[in-house]
Amino acid sequence: MRSFSFAKGQATLNDFVLITDRHNTMPLSEADVAWICDRRAGIGADGVLRAVKGEFIREWRGDPDWWFMDYRNADGSVADACGNGLRLFVRYLIQEDLAPRNEVFVGTRAGARTVWELFDGRLRATMGPVSIDEEPTWVALGGHRYEAHGADVGNPHAVVLLDAPVDALDLRAPVTFDRERFPAGVNVEFAARAGEHRLRLRVVERGVGETRSCGTGVVAAAAVAAQAWTGEPVGDLGVDVPGGRLDVRLRDGQSYLTGPAVVVARGEATLPD
Amino acid sequence: MRSFSFAKGQATLNDFVLITDRHNTMPLSEADVAWICDRRAGIGADGVLRAVKGEFIREWRGDPDWWFMDYRNADGSVADACGNGLRLFVRYLIQEDLAPRNEVFVGTRAGARTVWELFDGRLRATMGPVSIDEEPTWVALGGHRYEAHGADVGNPHAVVLLDAPVDALDLRAPVTFDRERFPAGVNVEFAARAGEHRLRLRVVERGVGETRSCGTGVVAAAAVAAQAWTGEPVGDLGVDVPGGRLDVRLRDGQSYLTGPAVVVARGEATLPD
Repeated sequence: MRSFSFAKGQATLNDFVLITDRHNTMPLSEADVAWICDRRAGIGADGVLRAVKGEFIREWRGDPDWWFMDYRNADGSVADACGNGLRLFVRYLIQEDLAPRNEVFVGTRAGARTVWELFDGRLRATMGPVSIDEEPTWVALGGHRYEAHGADVGNPHAVVLLDAPVDALDLRAPVTFDRERFPAGVNVEFAARAGEHRLRLRVVERGVGETRSCGTGVVAAAAVAAQAWTGEPVGDLGVDVPGGRLDVRLRDGQSYLTGPAVVVARGEATLPD
Repeated sequence: MRSFSFAKGQATLNDFVLITDRHNTMPLSEADVAWICDRRAGIGADGVLRAVKGEFIREWRGDPDWWFMDYRNADGSVADACGNGLRLFVRYLIQEDLAPRNEVFVGTRAGARTVWELFDGRLRATMGPVSIDEEPTWVALGGHRYEAHGADVGNPHAVVLLDAPVDALDLRAPVTFDRERFPAGVNVEFAARAGEHRLRLRVVERGVGETRSCGTGVVAAAAVAAQAWTGEPVGDLGVDVPGGRLDVRLRDGQSYLTGPAVVVARGEATLPD
């Protein structure tokens, strides 16, 4: 009987189960995570975010007093970076009195992150530098081949800038891409301009299919769009995804993602034997 | 701010959020239920089961001291009968010390029900009488038309007895049926014999599509199969559905459904304003 306390929440409809395990005494097996994320047999979520103090995470070389975000995908696999999960993680830490308001430092497998709670209740998180490939690449969808721009935000993205509305795309069709360029797969973003500083975006996450939102994909698409519009991957852009509205700031080699995050429920559960 | 305590659980992978509201002081609007059942924005479930004392339910004419199961679908609409939900409802009442072990009486919109906890941990519930139509009907799937048998277990079913394995059917294709015979729609079961007293079953629920399990559909299919095999809708049958194993007893004009049910988590949540 392994009982645990949890919270469940969402950020632009990416949803997560959150668990505090300060001393790293409850490592979760792949099967444990898969059960927790099973939407019928378990609690149900896109992933699990486990809060562990950095000093108990061997791979964390940063400040031992920071909280480390142990992010796991729904299938139990280890994941690196998640912009939406990061905001929810900090919302949760603040509400549980585990972190101060204003400025929270978080260790992740993609490196150190800083998150601020804004006056309007949204959270702003550093997302690290974005690097855009010089050479264009391609993405194909339903028999149509598009030019795309490779971008890396800790994970690989291919961004297609469309002239037509993204809402009309049928993203149930398989998406193909240059396997030599992206041997481990790639997340694909379809973006259309929706105003002077505004993008409308849909995302196909590798191994998952279309999702309501993808934090790193929003940042990658904003950088590629800014580069295309102004010649530099710099500026402030609003990005509408199916799960809600996010804002991206690109400045001084750093990227920032701002958006909502809400803890929806708190509870206790017991892992099956 | 309307905060509430809840449990979440499942019975053959039909999952529900359970809420105790003894005095009927927290009626739930359609929007409330839809939010609770939203798998990303809310808690996530196939439906909500609210436990209210019978004396506070105007439509309940039975014993005022019984618990009444206010069962709502995920879209917020009111539902009548749910065999899987009923077992989970009683498991929850027992675990919360709201009902005795052994024998629990429950009021539902489909009438009075009795549920027993068995020694092996499963629960057995009365499901009311089954009436099988004398005239056969038809069901069509993917261009193929099948003979079907209409059956009523508080809600309408059309049962197809197949000679071939049910696993091979593509149930994503639309299912059509005799609209004059079933003007309010019908749940469709595809069943194949899997042993002397054993059925393998897949269910397409009206308005939903294929589900992992449907308590009333299991009882309807068992009755139709027993009638076809023995000339009488009587006997004990094991039924395998995608969500697990259920047992049906048909005797003395009453039907009984036996199977597992497990409470997975307990918690607190707050309805959005």
